[in-house]
Amino acid sequence: MSIPSTHKVAFVREFGKPLSIEEVPTPKPKGTEVLVKISGAGICHTDVHVWEGVWKPAGIPPRLPWIISHELTGIVVDKGEKVPDTVKVGQKVLIFAWGWTEEDIYVWKGYSNLTDYPLHLGVWTEGGLREYFLVPHYRYLVDAEGLDDLPAAAPLGCAGLTTYRVVKKAKNILEGDDYVVVVGIGGLGIYALKWLNLLAPYTNIIAVDIRDDALEFASKRAHIDHLINASKTDPVSTIMEITSRRGAKVVIDTVGVEKTVSTYYNVVGKTGVFFLVGMGGVAATIAPLLAMSTMEKSISGIVVGTLPEQIEVINLAKKGKINYKDVISKRLKLEEATEALEALRHGKALGRQIVVFP
Amino acid sequence: MSIPSTHKVAFVREFGKPLSIEEVPTPKPKGTEVLVKISGAGICHTDVHVWEGVWKPAGIPPRLPWIISHELTGIVVDKGEKVPDTVKVGQKVLIFAWGWTEEDIYVWKGYSNLTDYPLHLGVWTEGGLREYFLVPHYRYLVDAEGLDDLPAAAPLGCAGLTTYRVVKKAKNILEGDDYVVVVGIGGLGIYALKWLNLLAPYTNIIAVDIRDDALEFASKRAHIDHLINASKTDPVSTIMEITSRRGAKVVIDTVGVEKTVSTYYNVVGKTGVFFLVGMGGVAATIAPLLAMSTMEKSISGIVVGTLPEQIEVINLAKKGKINYKDVISKRLKLEEATEALEALRHGKALGRQIVVFP
Amino acid sequence: MSIPSTHKVAFVREFGKPLSIEEVPTPKPKGTEVLVKISGAGICHTDVHVWEGVWKPAGIPPRLPWIISHELTGIVVDKGEKVPDTVKVGQKVLIFAWGWTEEDIYVWKGYSNLTDYPLHLGVWTEGGLREYFLVPHYRYLVDAEGLDDLPAAAPLGCAGLTTYRVVKKAKNILEGDDYVVVVGIGGLGIYALKWLNLLAPYTNIIAVDIRDDALEFASKRAHIDHLINASKTDPVSTIMEITSRRGAKVVIDTVGVEKTVSTYYNVVGKTGVFFLVGMGGVAATIAPLLAMSTMEKSISGIVVGTLPEQIEVINLAKKGKINYKDVISKRLKLEEATEALEALRHGKALGRQIVVFP
Amino acid sequence: MSIPSTHKVAFVREFGKPLSIEEVPTPKPKGTEVLVKISGAGICHTDVHVWEGVWKPAGIPPRLPWIISHELTGIVVDKGEKVPDTVKVGQKVLIFAWGWTEEDIYVWKGYSNLTDYPLHLGVWTEGGLREYFLVPHYRYLVDAEGLDDLPAAAPLGCAGLTTYRVVKKAKNILEGDDYVVVVGIGGLGIYALKWLNLLAPYTNIIAVDIRDDALEFASKRAHIDHLINASKTDPVSTIMEITSRRGAKVVIDTVGVEKTVSTYYNVVGKTGVFFLVGMGGVAATIAPLLAMSTMEKSISGIVVGTLPEQIEVINLAKKGKINYKDVISKRLKLEEATEALEALRHGKALGRQIVVFP
Repeated sequence: MSIPSTHKVAFVREFGKPLSIEEVPTPKPKGTEVLVKISGAGICHTDVHVWEGVWKPAGIPPRLPWIISHELTGIVVDKGEKVPDTVKVGQKVLIFAWGWTEEDIYVWKGYSNLTDYPLHLGVWTEGGLREYFLVPHYRYLVDAEGLDDLPAAAPLGCAGLTTYRVVKKAKNILEGDDYVVVVGIGGLGIYALKWLNLLAPYTNIIAVDIRDDALEFASKRAHIDHLINASKTDPVSTIMEITSRRGAKVVIDTVGVEKTVSTYYNVVGKTGVFFLVGMGGVAATIAPLLAMSTMEKSISGIVVGTLPEQIEVINLAKKGKINYKDVISKRLKLEEATEALEALRHGKALGRQIVVFP
Repeated sequence: MSIPSTHKVAFVREFGKPLSIEEVPTPKPKGTEVLVKISGAGICHTDVHVWEGVWKPAGIPPRLPWIISHELTGIVVDKGEKVPDTVKVGQKVLIFAWGWTEEDIYVWKGYSNLTDYPLHLGVWTEGGLREYFLVPHYRYLVDAEGLDDLPAAAPLGCAGLTTYRVVKKAKNILEGDDYVVVVGIGGLGIYALKWLNLLAPYTNIIAVDIRDDALEFASKRAHIDHLINASKTDPVSTIMEITSRRGAKVVIDTVGVEKTVSTYYNVVGKTGVFFLVGMGGVAATIAPLLAMSTMEKSISGIVVGTLPEQIEVINLAKKGKINYKDVISKRLKLEEATEALEALRHGKALGRQIVVFP
Repeated sequence: MSIPSTHKVAFVREFGKPLSIEEVPTPKPKGTEVLVKISGAGICHTDVHVWEGVWKPAGIPPRLPWIISHELTGIVVDKGEKVPDTVKVGQKVLIFAWGWTEEDIYVWKGYSNLTDYPLHLGVWTEGGLREYFLVPHYRYLVDAEGLDDLPAAAPLGCAGLTTYRVVKKAKNILEGDDYVVVVGIGGLGIYALKWLNLLAPYTNIIAVDIRDDALEFASKRAHIDHLINASKTDPVSTIMEITSRRGAKVVIDTVGVEKTVSTYYNVVGKTGVFFLVGMGGVAATIAPLLAMSTMEKSISGIVVGTLPEQIEVINLAKKGKINYKDVISKRLKLEEATEALEALRHGKALGRQIVVFP
Repeated sequence: MSIPSTHKVAFVREFGKPLSIEEVPTPKPKGTEVLVKISGAGICHTDVHVWEGVWKPAGIPPRLPWIISHELTGIVVDKGEKVPDTVKVGQKVLIFAWGWTEEDIYVWKGYSNLTDYPLHLGVWTEGGLREYFLVPHYRYLVDAEGLDDLPAAAPLGCAGLTTYRVVKKAKNILEGDDYVVVVGIGGLGIYALKWLNLLAPYTNIIAVDIRDDALEFASKRAHIDHLINASKTDPVSTIMEITSRRGAKVVIDTVGVEKTVSTYYNVVGKTGVFFLVGMGGVAATIAPLLAMSTMEKSISGIVVGTLPEQIEVINLAKKGKINYKDVISKRLKLEEATEALEALRHGKALGRQIVVFP
């Protein structure tokens, strides 16, 4: 495969300002490294936070210049001398974005998503919004042969993975005929609904958002039993009525702000779990506190996913068990990536927007 | 056994005022009922709440007159015609306080502590601060033969049971050399420490309180690795230092107020669980919210316990696996019960105070 | 509703001989009892064992005369004075067959299926192959209003329930793209496949039987990825090939004889579980034993189900989440019940046969 | 540290014949390698199998010459250029014996003990019965500073680790006052008892062996509630009597032969688990099979342990939570190692025998 000596990168040069498209030298992979020609790059809410430089609460210092995007698929074009034959030039891959720079106890325990040494693309190390991306270790390549829309599969690396992790945990709690509430039907929410359709179709699914268009977009792409626009009706009383006052066994909050946590904590029923997935918030008030005890409720955080989970996600997509393609609402060129960030920042995006490469 | 036609009861006639000791007719057990001559009655923080009439947040209406106390041991003196031979007059028993008035899905699932039809003594139905108590169903009698200090075993019915439930859950999360923090070393806290000593001695135990005398009382009765007086040192930084900045795998909060939840949430490490046991609070603020996700922490509520757990607790006490006797700091007469309530209300009690009957 | 003073019962008068249809007085319900006019009665393999009088290994003594059948649906026609208003004359119900005659620790723990005091219809107490059946306690009635084919729902009380229990456990072990093998596609097997379709559609399903017609019957009623006729091909090598030599994460053995256990133990992969559901066998040899350790495999027994599980099963059927109707291969009159037993005994039945009442 | 240019190795040159002590060149560590001067090497039953060349059932081909022993402690004497500063020359270490030569899905899931690419010392790759051992990767060194008897800690790498893994799983099943049976009180059994004393002291412990001296040796080193010599009394009826006919919640079989599996399967009570740890057997017959279902029993295999578990084991030893020293029954020189193998082969060893190095 012919590899150009330079390629385009979209840099964050000023926080919250249009990305700067620049030409840089294409690196040559060494050792365990693999060079991937990017096919698709998803634009996630985390990218907006990093682009705006406001993500200090997570302990992540604002850095400039920076490259965002961690939802990446592409084609292997070159590889270092330590990369085994199983990795082939020309192979379609998804790049696992949540690796580690050193092994530690969390990696060994199967909790690599919690490692003290995160190699989290676009967050702790530079992301992949560029034509060619140098993957530091071949272990982070997940075979994607057989996926017929490779760019559209990019969001399976974060939105698809994180929601898979949470729904996989949720299914072990969910029993026949239980109720699940998904709060926020954006990029994560729609994947959460799709995974619920695949992993827990024996439940009753309630989707909540404050935008009718988001609910409508989702309702055409996933089976939902009850749609609630929380800006028009009181979601708590509506959910309590739907559930015959028992509440939900599981709430999946893909927004994660003060208001969503405080509100939907109250629809969790006895022995139920509120899964916090969204990372939008700084603090939240839990009330009544007593109900946590008397109903034995829980709140549980979830972050991204592990490599085995990523492999499961891709295998399920390959087998057609999940339609990852109809989540994509917009395909932009690299030069238009700022538009996607602006749309997300202003709450105007639907599903997932991706940057596609020629 | 000769049963007097009348006996003494301690009534709450006015909220927060001295209990009124009155003589009432002794009932005759019918059907599944059993009459128990009370030996010991523990005074719990819940009793203070009910006595003060301030427990509306739990949905419990203030009622007058009322009888408090749900930690009860005694001797069977009479029984209804449907009570089987296995229940014998003269038998020592602990009265399980967390029954149900009707079976429901929670009872059938083994979650009778969460039933929609609670027969919770002293809370939803009248308690046992009286000389003779009519137990509605013999299933609530736990054989206590072999316990050599029956009055002292009374708190095993609530303080001992609730902490057993939480530590039993905690032990399944706790791994070798993990850290556990017990917040609040009152009646519940000291039992939590004792159960940790029995169920999780492979962990490192940190006890936190704001009273030196409470910490000292506990340190003579349980093995504790680190004692922290949170009114004298910053508990969060101290715990982070002790744990080499990893935080605790488990926090057991026996206080459960705004301050304890908000503070000790921050010492929970990756994959750790904050167990909310105490019921003192109305609301609590969780911050930083992001850490819930990025560290995959959880908060989980716990309430009282089940009948099988109560049986386990008593069996362990019978075998001498737990010293329940040294928890008792004071033994009062029925006429002195108000003193115990006052001491608890003003945070001056140590361990557990019980009312003993001649 | 007019209740006849006598009604027909199908008695086992001689082991393995035709059932004797006799007229007996219709009982009047008292206390907690409820009289149900039977609509449908499923014929299960257990009925064959009891009918043949060969079930001593289970500790069940052969008794004569006896009444078989524990898969029962019907309509409430009369009730005792302690039955609450929520149970209504005219109401459609499924009769939960796995109750208890006394509460014990297993009932309290949510393991009523393991109680020491089984009220197991047709097994430990007389079954319901009769026009009117006296249910000892109203708690055993599961509301079936909304089921449009009440007789066809009868097998949900055993075949449907047992497989629900096992698949519910299996789903918590099964991860995305894992393989499951169902061994024996008779009455239980077809339900197991249907529950896998509902509870674990993210897996790859392999169905094994020794009859082509059974496999064909099932393949029209459930989604199956791979069909294997074990009398025609070597099932072990076939399954190892399908699974790329990894083996299955879960095997559900609905036959449970020496041969099935010994054979399919060997297709369980690392960390996998062999669920023993069928009760056909006396003993089984496990080899190589070493693979149990080196692959950390498990074998786990499952028996019937609990009342909450029964309610879940019926709720899922009401919502159309499972098609319980197409499992029924034959509907017979009470007088023809012996035919169903003979067909099962000789391995000639497909799906489930039921006796229907006019 | 001065490192000699040659050192002694104990080779298996002929199966089952005396080891051959030979002088070989001392290797120089490169890259991630670390050279460790061995302090102690435990002699395990697996070593006997490999020495005798009879372990084909595990898929392990007999190879000659070979070096046995996988329970190893020592002192770092040299290291490759990629080994970080945290590994220091002079440092005491235990060598984790159950690594991997390549990462795979099992490693990433936290099941490195089940990897398809085992680097299992003395089994799949050469062991450490030699004066100097070249550890292929520094990740396999577990810091042992603070252990005051380094040679005696060697068996913590296999006997101590495997039993820790099984007891850690067992504790999550074990409830207050449950019964546990440990079958076989050799090297593994005595560690299992010690871990039960630390991880599940709330249970009742039954130890079974066929040798009085083994039971006596153990009873001085661990708390045991009931000792049974199975060659003198019927262990099944004795255990059923001790447990009031309920059976044990957990059996830990450290022998794992036909007889132990077949026998002690029958003392597993309802919902109980038989953990197969020992690897002595080829096949076993389970009877009555029906009891597996009707009592919902399980059989589960366990093999060695993971690196995080190894770290926990060493940390607990450092804190004095387990006495690893009194397990050692005999300390031999390298030249006497064959004696230890002979003693084990003939069932004459007590506790653990180790080879110590000057």
